[in-house]
Amino acid sequence: MATVIPLETPRRANGDEALERLTALVAEDMAAVNHLILQRMESQVPLIPQLAGHIIAAGGKRLRPILTLASAKLCGYRGTRQNKLAACVEFIHTATLLHDDVVDASDLRRGNPSANALFGNQSSVLVGDFLFSRSFQLMVEDGSIDVLRILSTASAVIAEGEVLQLTTTNDSATSEQAYLEVVRAKTAELFAAACRIGAVVAGRPAAEEEALRTFGLNLGIAFQIVDDVLDYSAEQARLGKTVGDDFREGKITLPVILAIHRGTEAERAFWRRTLEEQDLREGDLAHAQDIMQRHNALRDAIERARHYGAIARDSLGLFPDSAAKRALLDIIGFTVERRF
Amino acid sequence: MATVIPLETPRRANGDEALERLTALVAEDMAAVNHLILQRMESQVPLIPQLAGHIIAAGGKRLRPILTLASAKLCGYRGTRQNKLAACVEFIHTATLLHDDVVDASDLRRGNPSANALFGNQSSVLVGDFLFSRSFQLMVEDGSIDVLRILSTASAVIAEGEVLQLTTTNDSATSEQAYLEVVRAKTAELFAAACRIGAVVAGRPAAEEEALRTFGLNLGIAFQIVDDVLDYSAEQARLGKTVGDDFREGKITLPVILAIHRGTEAERAFWRRTLEEQDLREGDLAHAQDIMQRHNALRDAIERARHYGAIARDSLGLFPDSAAKRALLDIIGFTVERRF
Repeated sequence: MATVIPLETPRRANGDEALERLTALVAEDMAAVNHLILQRMESQVPLIPQLAGHIIAAGGKRLRPILTLASAKLCGYRGTRQNKLAACVEFIHTATLLHDDVVDASDLRRGNPSANALFGNQSSVLVGDFLFSRSFQLMVEDGSIDVLRILSTASAVIAEGEVLQLTTTNDSATSEQAYLEVVRAKTAELFAAACRIGAVVAGRPAAEEEALRTFGLNLGIAFQIVDDVLDYSAEQARLGKTVGDDFREGKITLPVILAIHRGTEAERAFWRRTLEEQDLREGDLAHAQDIMQRHNALRDAIERARHYGAIARDSLGLFPDSAAKRALLDIIGFTVERRF
Repeated sequence: MATVIPLETPRRANGDEALERLTALVAEDMAAVNHLILQRMESQVPLIPQLAGHIIAAGGKRLRPILTLASAKLCGYRGTRQNKLAACVEFIHTATLLHDDVVDASDLRRGNPSANALFGNQSSVLVGDFLFSRSFQLMVEDGSIDVLRILSTASAVIAEGEVLQLTTTNDSATSEQAYLEVVRAKTAELFAAACRIGAVVAGRPAAEEEALRTFGLNLGIAFQIVDDVLDYSAEQARLGKTVGDDFREGKITLPVILAIHRGTEAERAFWRRTLEEQDLREGDLAHAQDIMQRHNALRDAIERARHYGAIARDSLGLFPDSAAKRALLDIIGFTVERRF
């Protein structure tokens, strides 16, 4: 059942290189951040670095701390405060991943066993709490009340978004607007905060702080939409990545919402059976992918992501040209066109 | 199987009145704190105040925020900052309760259904995260980096203590020292922080801040030891409270440790079967209570608690006599001799 997802655009070819360029731009700072992360997840209780190390070593793209570093660079900041704050951002992200895995009862994360599958739900909740607290300790060391305000607010909004998501799960009547509100809260708010604090450490005017907040927020929305598309992507499956997690959990994501809105009665009955009643049968995922293909749901979800990418692009207009600006603009393309 | 726990001491009779006196001392502030708690657990996501309200309404003694208020009063503080910070302390405590209930898979808290039994583990984790974040937002509004440092550090230590506790659960070889380290981290650290910030808002010298930290830390250790004794208390059962939670979960608390150390080989086999192997049979709890009675394990655990109470008492020596000081001293007696 090979359905080909229409992700073919001129920009796609150099998507991965955009991430590499952004990563290279902040490589020196990122080495310091990685060192801080390892150092500050230490504890006299060995299970803490063990479990935290499992999820942090699993890697991912480290996109959020990279955004903090690149934003500080964009603002011409030449100090080192951004490193500690980038580590804060990654700790908050890691804590939410740990708590997410408990919530979703996931067995896999990025194709590897999730922390809760290996260490138990109990440990995942508590080590998440530890990383979250440690993040606030790092912010206190930095000493900026503005940063503390931005990240404590982001954390509260993220938790609200996750709870809101719980109340939409398995509800096939979820609107695109409700979906967007969840995405904004659970994902985009931390992207926004990560970028914004780059301007805060640099002491830049409110307009630049706001521009970076807008950039991060819209990049984050685009990022999450594409993430949700990739969970149904046949190409993703060919790359050996897990697909269908959201489908099996009954998460109502944009591809599903578009397919439901555009679908026949028979298709809607299929979505109700699979997503609401969680009555899953052999071949259901492939059938879901077929329906999405028929209604261009994945292609048009990417189109929606491109819209948020465009807002992010324009928000950087007030910054003069620089290597950091070019790398941040290119990362929008990567975010929208990526295959992983 | 009515085993009578030797909690009869001269002080016991007025224990409850001590709590009433302390509560009355800060009644006006506490009304403001309760208002803040209700106001700041609000969210556009209705499940959040619903679930948080369930656990906050369940009440308990509100001992931690009361300690913040009374400590500020002891220090002669006449402003209102203590109210917001007392709400912070209660939010952190509530968040840890929510996460604890997930961890322990408890069905009951204070004799009522626990939040996770009513709302699910997922919601409990996320609403806990929300309250925790909200607590940091409140601290940011207060604006003191010192308070932020104290409470973020306490939060990290609490999480470490909870993880440490996981690693001792079901291990009947747990030492009294390891038990104390868990208690200090998971319970006493927040008592210490709650008291200490009373001195911080009042801008008192380091010696008074340290005195209140010492008071809270030792009061917290005493409080937790007595809590662990009450879980085996026949009187507790007669009052209609749940007993035996710790026993069923295989938690290695001080009464158990004393009973194991003083026990026969047959008794140790019993503890291994029940606490380690979790092979529980009809009558096991009553038998556990019998063994404890035989070895004076509950009485002597209370004696240990009294030791920490004595340290707390002496720590207040540098404060001049006042209604606040008398109420705080009396609360030590309540903590050690209480029956609930």
